[in-house]
Parts: sequence; structure tokens; C-alpha cells
Amino acid sequence: MLHFECDYLEGCHPRLLEKIVAANLRQTPGYGVDEYCRKAKRLIRQACQAPDADVHFMVGGTQANLTMIKAMLRVHQGVISPSTGHITCHEGGAIEATGHKVFTIAQEDGKLTAAALRQFMVDHYNDCAIEFLMRPGLVYISLPTELGTNYSLAELRALRAVCDEYHLPIYIDGARLGYGLVAQDSDVTLADVARIADAFYIGGTKVGALFGEAVVITNPQFKPHMRTVMKQTGAVLAKGRLLGIQFARLFTDDLYFRISRHAVQMAMKLKKALQEHGYALVGSSQTNQIFVRVTARQFQKLSAVMNPPVWSSEPDGGYVIRLVTSWATKEENVDALIRAL
Amino acid sequence: MLHFECDYLEGCHPRLLEKIVAANLRQTPGYGVDEYCRKAKRLIRQACQAPDADVHFMVGGTQANLTMIKAMLRVHQGVISPSTGHITCHEGGAIEATGHKVFTIAQEDGKLTAAALRQFMVDHYNDCAIEFLMRPGLVYISLPTELGTNYSLAELRALRAVCDEYHLPIYIDGARLGYGLVAQDSDVTLADVARIADAFYIGGTKVGALFGEAVVITNPQFKPHMRTVMKQTGAVLAKGRLLGIQFARLFTDDLYFRISRHAVQMAMKLKKALQEHGYALVGSSQTNQIFVRVTARQFQKLSAVMNPPVWSSEPDGGYVIRLVTSWATKEENVDALIRAL
Amino acid sequence: MLHFECDYLEGCHPRLLEKIVAANLRQTPGYGVDEYCRKAKRLIRQACQAPDADVHFMVGGTQANLTMIKAMLRVHQGVISPSTGHITCHEGGAIEATGHKVFTIAQEDGKLTAAALRQFMVDHYNDCAIEFLMRPGLVYISLPTELGTNYSLAELRALRAVCDEYHLPIYIDGARLGYGLVAQDSDVTLADVARIADAFYIGGTKVGALFGEAVVITNPQFKPHMRTVMKQTGAVLAKGRLLGIQFARLFTDDLYFRISRHAVQMAMKLKKALQEHGYALVGSSQTNQIFVRVTARQFQKLSAVMNPPVWSSEPDGGYVIRLVTSWATKEENVDALIRAL
Amino acid sequence: MLHFECDYLEGCHPRLLEKIVAANLRQTPGYGVDEYCRKAKRLIRQACQAPDADVHFMVGGTQANLTMIKAMLRVHQGVISPSTGHITCHEGGAIEATGHKVFTIAQEDGKLTAAALRQFMVDHYNDCAIEFLMRPGLVYISLPTELGTNYSLAELRALRAVCDEYHLPIYIDGARLGYGLVAQDSDVTLADVARIADAFYIGGTKVGALFGEAVVITNPQFKPHMRTVMKQTGAVLAKGRLLGIQFARLFTDDLYFRISRHAVQMAMKLKKALQEHGYALVGSSQTNQIFVRVTARQFQKLSAVMNPPVWSSEPDGGYVIRLVTSWATKEENVDALIRAL
Repeated sequence: MLHFECDYLEGCHPRLLEKIVAANLRQTPGYGVDEYCRKAKRLIRQACQAPDADVHFMVGGTQANLTMIKAMLRVHQGVISPSTGHITCHEGGAIEATGHKVFTIAQEDGKLTAAALRQFMVDHYNDCAIEFLMRPGLVYISLPTELGTNYSLAELRALRAVCDEYHLPIYIDGARLGYGLVAQDSDVTLADVARIADAFYIGGTKVGALFGEAVVITNPQFKPHMRTVMKQTGAVLAKGRLLGIQFARLFTDDLYFRISRHAVQMAMKLKKALQEHGYALVGSSQTNQIFVRVTARQFQKLSAVMNPPVWSSEPDGGYVIRLVTSWATKEENVDALIRAL
Repeated sequence: MLHFECDYLEGCHPRLLEKIVAANLRQTPGYGVDEYCRKAKRLIRQACQAPDADVHFMVGGTQANLTMIKAMLRVHQGVISPSTGHITCHEGGAIEATGHKVFTIAQEDGKLTAAALRQFMVDHYNDCAIEFLMRPGLVYISLPTELGTNYSLAELRALRAVCDEYHLPIYIDGARLGYGLVAQDSDVTLADVARIADAFYIGGTKVGALFGEAVVITNPQFKPHMRTVMKQTGAVLAKGRLLGIQFARLFTDDLYFRISRHAVQMAMKLKKALQEHGYALVGSSQTNQIFVRVTARQFQKLSAVMNPPVWSSEPDGGYVIRLVTSWATKEENVDALIRAL
Repeated sequence: MLHFECDYLEGCHPRLLEKIVAANLRQTPGYGVDEYCRKAKRLIRQACQAPDADVHFMVGGTQANLTMIKAMLRVHQGVISPSTGHITCHEGGAIEATGHKVFTIAQEDGKLTAAALRQFMVDHYNDCAIEFLMRPGLVYISLPTELGTNYSLAELRALRAVCDEYHLPIYIDGARLGYGLVAQDSDVTLADVARIADAFYIGGTKVGALFGEAVVITNPQFKPHMRTVMKQTGAVLAKGRLLGIQFARLFTDDLYFRISRHAVQMAMKLKKALQEHGYALVGSSQTNQIFVRVTARQFQKLSAVMNPPVWSSEPDGGYVIRLVTSWATKEENVDALIRAL
Repeated sequence: MLHFECDYLEGCHPRLLEKIVAANLRQTPGYGVDEYCRKAKRLIRQACQAPDADVHFMVGGTQANLTMIKAMLRVHQGVISPSTGHITCHEGGAIEATGHKVFTIAQEDGKLTAAALRQFMVDHYNDCAIEFLMRPGLVYISLPTELGTNYSLAELRALRAVCDEYHLPIYIDGARLGYGLVAQDSDVTLADVARIADAFYIGGTKVGALFGEAVVITNPQFKPHMRTVMKQTGAVLAKGRLLGIQFARLFTDDLYFRISRHAVQMAMKLKKALQEHGYALVGSSQTNQIFVRVTARQFQKLSAVMNPPVWSSEPDGGYVIRLVTSWATKEENVDALIRAL
């Protein structure tokens, strides 16, 4: 059977595994204050062109999101998310469990638009009971979005402008950041992300690592006491070096982006074939996630080679399925799937 | 100037004030374990035909809502509310601050319908990531609604049926319960409310009391340890007897419903006059809140006698205003407003 | 039977009740933005010699404590309290429920000493795992203490000096502030309290009001967004004017301190009689709470005229009882108790 | 330099690393529903003689503690811990951040005794304000303790008896469980732990794994909805199989206990040498942590071969240091340290 369900089906990229194996019996201090982590932080700051940024390594995306949002908000504040945001849909109420409301704004092609954000803020400040409203205190977006789409640099700058007007910091969930930045429709660089966001994370779990996300904090206001907040959410890994080893390798020899490119190339090959075979694509994703509307018959056909990963059911008996490639996707499997279309 | 902004402009009904004055220098134990509270609880249980119910007095609506919802939910659960629910709009994120998500469902005429609730639950249980979703654990509705509308007994029973199917308890916010139950379009009794809800509160602040809400818990599952949870949220009044004195009086000689009827009569007189003068009513409220769409010119006209209480601004320069009557509304003021229409 | 169980046995001082009655049917806006509240705030700022202070009225002490501590702490911080602090003993875990640790320090005669605070901070900063410790972020004390004792001005200044050294704000729980400030052993004024604390509250519930505490915030850092935090904890009273009316009266004609003096005089009369009759006093309270160790036989004797209010049981069959006077204590009752000794 | 600072200086046992490498490019579903996790759970249930237990894998100890304590407590409850408990000292206020109080009881040799627990509960239920106290709802202990000491089976049974009397479940933090169970002074088996605790975890991070703790829930009351709570705390690892692979290997061929024995043998060799060289041992630990009081001179001597890991500073200029062995400790390094004594 073929597997395109997600981008965390395998372990890690062989170059990272080599490093983990090589370091296995070396002795280092715990909790991420070792030389591997120092090196990884240095490399990430360079890649971000953010020499003063703080970098923290956490184990997973939900952990990074809840820890950072908790640390960045005050008690009277909530976080704004597009309606498809991972934090509002699929994290078990993790943000609310830290005491904060998630304000949702209708998304367009997976994205939060500057216009929609401005309208939301205008309405909020027009509310006659404003004193008794939780106050928006942070904007959360994903790059690329949950639907695989990319923000253009102009779109990010427009969001930033609205945020500046309303003193809203921006936090970017980069679970699949590599796959977004290397896509053909992206004119955004890692340095752009570091300039536009107050904090963001570079996803490792889905982009070559066994696990791990590198949180980058560029706004000095949010730097103090992060390690204590991380301990409080259980986000300090005892053998923190495992995260340092992996990110140091990912950010050496451009590996992070090279493996991201492979994933996107595989996705685009698949997308092209789907289009040629008359499948109806959903959304405009040019990253590693392809959403396709399939009829009941097409679904059955695909079932010969895979368990088609259902994203949603359609009233007519069809489905939207999501096909995901990754750094680990073998071209022979893409070809096998194409043959089965 | 005339005042129809809300139903808490005045102090309390003179019959209640007399009792407070009479008891002023009597000595009783604190924290609501006095004879006044015992009497009030007994009268409320009788009025609810719920001899086994637990009754607790709290000071205000937000306090009652956050305390009860916190007590009724487990950590993995959230509360369902119609999109206009007070808890999701105007309580400063009080529910999220206790760690729980508020799921909102689009309202119809202010109400959560059984059909919409069922669809929400069907969708929820269809989500492939259900394990990672905060689980709906309670349904919150207001009676009457934020828009002054009433649920019929059939509507409440239909909601209850869906809730039973999904093991969802119901909590009813009765901030204006009196005004709802006595309205002409209501076929619901206090005993019906006690039978249908697992817990609810009978609003005093807006219906004749200086302050105070009587929480009634009929489902035995939610009775234990409420006093400790109340202390935790600061909801135990030192001189709890003040609440007992007031509710004992409200539930003597049918006072609660008699004064509710007055408010509704005043509202209906006003509504009739508005209709006769060609004002466009919004929603179908037959309780003590009347929503009217006014043109910029009508707004100006009303401004001669009042600061018209704006509910929302319309794109055409007009407004929706909300006119509220109460137990304390003087008919002469209603007549004065009618003359100014 | 005589009652000396607590200082909230009665309603409110007749001068306050008159004002409540007089205002009963007047119409004012809700939520404490009325003229009564404005006047009360002005009078309180004057009494505190703190013209720039923010004043907020809340209903009760636990509510004031949890709201202020929640608002003053960041997520990585906890609050320091003497081991007898009300917040750590008798508020149902209200502070922890807002997400914060209560660090307790052994008390001396009910008080937190500067020396003990300094030692705690030294030890805290010496801990090798300091990064992973919740950080002390606020000092909570009561004036007078839970045991009725007073801090001298020198003691408060010494505490303040340690706090300044460690950047710790101070929050003072003044549930019985009047009874403390007027005691013979106090050299502290209300203005001193306002100068030393970053925020504190002037207790009304136990000092002449039906209910209500006036929170005074002098440190500008803690002023923003308090109304939203108050709404979030259910601490905004709909008919907020009730609090304004009462505090405006308490701070007119020195009423607050005059009635406090009465309570303390009654307590001192009782204390003197207890000493003369050979009862063993516990602690050095010169305020309105007297702690006495009674033998089983003395306890039985007292039981003829009262239910002696047990503070703690002694291994030898005796008890420590707490006798409390208030603004409402009748001298004839004190005399009756003295006769029974 | 020699390193005996902690038991997480290295990566993982080579047998585990082999398995991780072998599985690296295999494709499995995410979030721990793969065959490796299933196998590991089966092996753990067998080892625990608890065929009906639920087993969940989490990444680290603080994460496991906060997730389980949050899931096991209701809002009105707190957790009891010995005063040296990891949750109260070194987890950044993680438990309080979930809304619960940590009640601390003075420890004896690192342990919570049945007698001290009973006295605490007696005092708690004697408190006249019991209604307003957060209620003890769980007992937390570590096995072995933070000071490396072991509970005997009789001690655990005595604790269980007190807990049964007061309806208190027990949660055991087994971060170093292997090192405790194999120590010479232990008469407790893994099956005993599973019988006595309502939930506990088997530590992997410190006992041979790269990371990971296996939570075992034996009390059916605490099984439902754990996955949702885990998601909420960020405790669901995307590539959950990494945890399954490691625990499956640890619980094959008795590896977990074999490597634990090695650590304890190394510690005992060191302990014997310390005693022979006249060093003053602190506490009675027979597990992998040895606490020694060293004079300033001894400290200097040790500094030639290591940075002596300071546990606490003594007034006389000496120190208590903690020497920790692990599955990875090389005997040659122990010998080198002994030579330096």
C-alpha cells in the first residue's frame, strides 16, 4: 500500500540520524545548554539574519504553540486565528486551557487577510461593551496554512501593517515552514519571516527531524523568562541536545531547504498528474499538501493502492482527500500512485 | 431624560428593601447558612417543584455562569453556546479563563435550535481527529435569549432530546427568567425549566433584587463540592443572608412573577406604539427588551427625550436600538416616550 | 445567646443604609460608572493622599484578592504569603485556580518579617535550578494580620526595602484595615499604606458596609485593563453604585475610622477583662480580634452565654477561641460576656 | 573530567538505538497508534501483571506529571506531595498552572509517611472552615524518592491504607523506577507498584531511553479521555512510535532492570569507597543517587577530576554533593573517581 497520509510517517533524514548515533554516548549537560544546541541556535540566527533573536527548542507543534501563546498573552487577552487555524481546531483546547480565548476570523484559501483582520478589529473597538471584552492580544497564522497555501510577502506586510496599527504582535506557526518557503508561489524568505513575526517556529518534526521545533523570538519584549514558562508546560527536554543535534544538521549545507524542495517537487508532480487525469483540485496549494475532490468511483479506484486519506466527506458521496509528501517521499511511490489514478 | 437602557438602573423592589432594612441589625451566621437563606431555598424548591434540588445564591450573572460552567465541565470539555450567548460575547473571556473552550453555533432569532445542535454534534463526531478535539460537555442557553426571544416548551424538549442522545447536560442562564416566563409567547413554567435543565439560575439582579442570582441544581451529579468551587471563584458572599432575604421575598406572594408581568406589559405597550408609529422592529421579542431599527432622523427625534441605547450601527446611518423595561419602569415614562415617537 | 464569632454578623451601619434607601429608585448607569462611585473614589483618593490612584470596587475579599493577584502576576510568577495568609488557607485554592503558586513563609505573630522574606529570596536565588522555579512576583500581607496583629511603620518599611531590592510589588489585604489602623499599637496611616503598597484594598464588608471592598492601585504598572480582568472574574457588580454609595458614606465625616475605633474599644475592654479573670491570651492583637486559650472548664462556663467560637483544639482538651468585635458590637453584650467570664 | 551530575548525560542504550535506526524509514501512522506502541504496551502490561491497564507514552517527566495530575483532579481538589516532591520544587509551578494547589507534608528521608499523611488528613477534616478549603484529591510520591530512598512494600501498603480511608488515589512518579526496584533495600516489584498506585509512570529518560515515560493507569476511573487531555498539554508525540520502539526494547529480555542493576552496582561501589574514605553520607539511598557531605577541602580535592555537583551549601563552607550513576556509567570512571577520593 502507498502512504501519503501525512508528513510524519517516517523517522528522520539519514544525515540527522548519523549525527544522533555519533553523539550517542558523549556526555553533555541536560536541558539544552549543551554545545550542540548552541551551534544550532547560532546557525538558525544566521539563517534568519536575526543575530539578536532568542532560539528555543521544543518537542512538538502543539507544545510550541501553547507555550508561546501563553507566554505572549496577558490574562485579559486572546489570540486571533483564521478559522482553519490548527490551534482552534485540532489541539484539544490547549490554548483555552491556558486561559485564553481564540478569536476566529473566516479564512480565504486558508489565509487570514489584512482586510478581514482590520474589519475584525474595527468591529471589536466599536463594541459598546468593549471594556468587558477579552482583548485581542496576538495574531496567529500558519505559514504555509493548514490548506497548504502560501502568504505572499505583500500579504504578510499588509497583515503586519494592520497589526502595527493595533499593537498586535504576530506569531507564525511554521510546522511546515520549509515546504512553504521553497514553493514556487512563495516570494518570502526565512529572513522575511523573522522580520515580520514577533515570534515563530521553524518546524522540524515534519521536515526531516525525528521531532523538534525551533522557536525564534525576535521581539525583545517576549524574551524574558521563557525557560521558566517552558518548564511550566513540560517543554524542556532533559536531553535537549537531541534537538540541537538535529537542527544543527538541518541548518548545515542548506539541508532544511533541500529536503523541503524534494517534498514540493514530488507534490507538484502528483498535482500535475491529478490535473491531467481530470481530478478536481481544491484550493491553490503549491506546497507539500494536495487537496483533491474525488468521486465515490475515483475513491474506490484509489483504494486499490492506498487508504485514501479523507479530509472531508461530500454530500454527493464523494470526498475531499489530502495527499501529503515529505522529505522522505520516494519518487517511485509517487509514480505508482500516478499510475493508479 | 428618559431611561430605557437596561433593567438595572434602579435599586431593588420596595418590598425587598423593607426586609433588608428590617433585618439590618439582626445577627446571623455568615456565608449563607442562615435562616433567611434556608427559607428562600425552600420557597424556590417549591416554586420549581424540585424538592431535591440544591439552591445556591451568587451575586451576579457572570459569577454564576463561570462558577457553574467551571464546576460542570471536566478538563477535556467545552461548552456549547449560541453565537449570541452572553458567555461568549460579554464576559471578558471568563469561561476561557477557567480553561474551557466556548463552541459557538449560529443562532436563529437568538436561539440555539435542536437541529443546529444535532448538526454540530454530528460534525463533531465525524471529525477524523476527534480524539484531539476538546469535547462538547455542556449546552448553555439563555431563557429568554440575549435578543429577548423565548424558547417554546417544544423547542426546549427538542434540545433536551438531542442533549440526551449525546449525554450533554444543559445549563440555562436565567438572568431575565421572570420576564421570559410571563411573556405571552411563553408556554414554559419554572417547573419545566427545572425539569429540562441540569442546572440553571433564576435572575434577581434584573428582576427586583439589589443583586443576586439563585442557582438551582437538579442533576445530582453536579451537587457535590459546589460550596468549595464557589469559594474558589469568590462567589460566597460573607453576609449571604442579603441574598436569602431578597429571594425569600421575591418568592413570597408571587412577587417575582408579578413584577415580571409589569415589565413585560410596559414593553408590550411600547412595542405596540412603535409598530403603530411605523418603527421597524427587529426580532420577535415579547419580553422586556424591544429591538427597533431607527433611521438617522428617528434617532434624532428620540434624542430629544433620551440617549437612545444603541445596540448596533447600520451602514445606512441608522441604528438598531434596544429599549428595556423592568419591574421599576413607570408607566408615565413609557407614555412620555410614546408621545415622543 | 451572645455572638462574637465574626465581624459580619449584622447588615450595615445605619448611616449607610439610609443612603441606600434614599437612592433606591434613582436611575443611574450600571457597572460602577455612576456619580456615587465617582464621589466615593474621589474621597478615597483624598483619604489615601494618592490623587493618581485608581480605585475599583469589588464585592468581597476573596474576589478582590484573586482578581488583583491574577492581574498583578505574570504566568511564570507566584505570590509570597505568610503561612497564615488568608489566600493560602481559606479561599478554596482561589489563587492556584488562577494558575499561580502561593509561596508560604513561616509567620511571626501573624506577620511576614523582612528578615524572613530576605532569607526566602536569598535561598530562592541560590537554588541551582532557579530557571525551573516559579518566580516570586508579588508579596501578599494582611493589615492587620489574620491573627489581629499590626505591622509597625518600621516593619512595613523594612519589608518594602527588601521588596525594592528584589523588584517585588506588595499587595495588602485590608479586609479589617480600619480596625488595624486605629489600634493603639499602630503608627501607620492610610496614606502610609498607600505609599508602601503597590495595591491594597480597604475592607468594607467587615467595617460597616453590607458588602464591598475598595481596591486602590497606586503603581501605574498595574492600572491598565483592570476592568476587563474584573469582568473576567465576575467582579463587576451590575448595580455598582451600591458600592459607591456605601464607600462615599464611609469616607465622609471620618465614619470609617470612627466605627473602627468603637470596635477596637470594645475588644480592648473585653481583653482587659479576660486578663483580669486570668484567661491566657494568645498573640498580641490590639485590634478587633482577641484570641484566648480556654480550659475545658472555662469553655463550659462560656457556653452558658455563647457558642464559644473555636479557633483550634488543644491536646489537653482546651481550646483557643477567637472573640471578634465590630462596628456593630453593643457594649451591653460585651458587659454581659464579661460578667460570664 | 568525570561526570556524575545526573542520569541523562548520554543518549540511549545501544540496543534501543539499533531499533530506532532499523525502523527509521519504515512508514507508520502517527500519534502512537502504531505496532511498536502496541507491542510496548503489551509488554508493559505483562511486566506489571496488569492486563487491563491503559498505557500512554509521554516525552518527559514534568509533562507526564502535569498531564496526569490535571486529568486526575477535579477543580476543587489539590495534590498532596512530600515537601521534597519534584512537582512542588522544580517544575516551574506546572501543577499550579493547571489550577491546583500542591499541599506539602514534611518528608522523612525523602518519604511521605503514612502517619504524616493521616495527621494531615485529620487536621484537614478538623478545620472548621473545611467547606472553603481546596480538598486533597490525590497523593503524589516518587519511587525512589528525590533523595534516592526507597519505600518498603509495608510503607507503601500503609500509605495505601490511609488513602483508602480518605478516598485518595495515589500517583507514583517513577522517573527512576528501575533504579529503585532493583536496589538491595527494595522488596517492591513492578507488579506491586501497579497494584498500589492508581496511576504511575515508568521512567525511560533516565533509564536507558533517549526520552520517554510510560504512564500506566490501573484505576478505570482515570482512563477515559486521556488522549484528549494529553493533546491539550502538548503531550502527544507526532512520531509516537519512537516511544513505542524504545519501551518495547526496554521491556524485552529484562533490559530495563538489567541496566538499572548496573547503575545501582556502580553507585554502591562508589558509596562503599566514600564510606571507606571517611566521607559523610547523607540519607540512606541505596539507589543510583549518592548524597555526600564534603568539607571545603574534600570539595577542592574532587574538583581535580570533576565539577562536584552541588546539592546544597553548608554554613561551614562545605557542601552536600549528589553523585549520580546510570545505565551508561562506565566502571572505569567510577574507579577513577574512587582513586581521586
